[in-house]
Amino acid sequence: MFEPIERSISRFINLEKEEFDFFKTLLTKKNFQKKELILRSGQICRNVYFINSGCLRYFYLVDGEEKTAQFFFENSWYTDYESFLSGDPSENFVDVIEDTELLCLEKDSLYKLYSEIPKFERFGRMMAENAYLGIRHRTKTLTNLSAEERYVKLIKERPKIFERIPQYYIASYLNIQPQSLSRIRKKLVTKG
Amino acid sequence: MFEPIERSISRFINLEKEEFDFFKTLLTKKNFQKKELILRSGQICRNVYFINSGCLRYFYLVDGEEKTAQFFFENSWYTDYESFLSGDPSENFVDVIEDTELLCLEKDSLYKLYSEIPKFERFGRMMAENAYLGIRHRTKTLTNLSAEERYVKLIKERPKIFERIPQYYIASYLNIQPQSLSRIRKKLVTKG
Repeated sequence: MFEPIERSISRFINLEKEEFDFFKTLLTKKNFQKKELILRSGQICRNVYFINSGCLRYFYLVDGEEKTAQFFFENSWYTDYESFLSGDPSENFVDVIEDTELLCLEKDSLYKLYSEIPKFERFGRMMAENAYLGIRHRTKTLTNLSAEERYVKLIKERPKIFERIPQYYIASYLNIQPQSLSRIRKKLVTKG
Repeated sequence: MFEPIERSISRFINLEKEEFDFFKTLLTKKNFQKKELILRSGQICRNVYFINSGCLRYFYLVDGEEKTAQFFFENSWYTDYESFLSGDPSENFVDVIEDTELLCLEKDSLYKLYSEIPKFERFGRMMAENAYLGIRHRTKTLTNLSAEERYVKLIKERPKIFERIPQYYIASYLNIQPQSLSRIRKKLVTKG
């Protein structure tokens, strides 16, 4: 159960066995079923999650319409970083696309780690840096690329999404109308 | 010369005298005159700057038109964080609004600090977290607020900008046409 998270953390920092054992005591396993909501707008996000298995979708509402902002798969970390850091209520939702097992680390526990095992500060720094780069990457993709370019880029960078996510969520993530996405796919298949 | 940066760092971490002395050996003082360019698009940003005095403007070009993204004043930190972290060329420019004195810390030196004085990791984490919150705040302001609301918010949150920055840069920063900004100002003066 803890192997994937150990592997993930070792990409950032080297923990001694006792340090990892202490870290494990702070984790809680949680299971969610497809379609369950993990976070809803108005709630404060007080956890960081490591995804052992499954898939999450992060979205928000504009005039009642769902706008898909991100997908998270097994072996990655998820939090509503803004709400987590600021303590303000989230404006987002997270739902479960496939049955999902999470390891949950509470904010207090993370700050305890920062104090008691300072090398976790490096882990925290790198997570924050990655979050920053991720948000810039996403903004630039949406601003600078055409719909077709966004689609082609996503296939290249994250093919997993096309195997596991319904097409209407992908369209929303790419900020393309579902009919336009079908048209682009057909056009590229014919071309290829 | 080092008092302001010491005060700024002490908001994040407590350094022993020897640690701060070592830190100081890694800093280089640089002076720039009004209108000079500190960074131009295509260059890789390899420094973090602490602003001892003066004011910087960070902007980018869209179809040849300058879009002002941020202002930085004395006692704050500046870097082109995306280029700095990724090592990719920047797409932005930084110019000098008032004669400015900077303390410059090279990327290699910062990573040396992370290794030799691990408590700088906390400093790095908090800088990254602040950068993340800053970019989210800016995006939400531009997306969710009307021109007038953005103007009123800026006066409230950062009155310094109105004392020291030419109005056409402020208009650009608020993503408002200069004529519209004048109209909003007049309207609010009449109201008030």
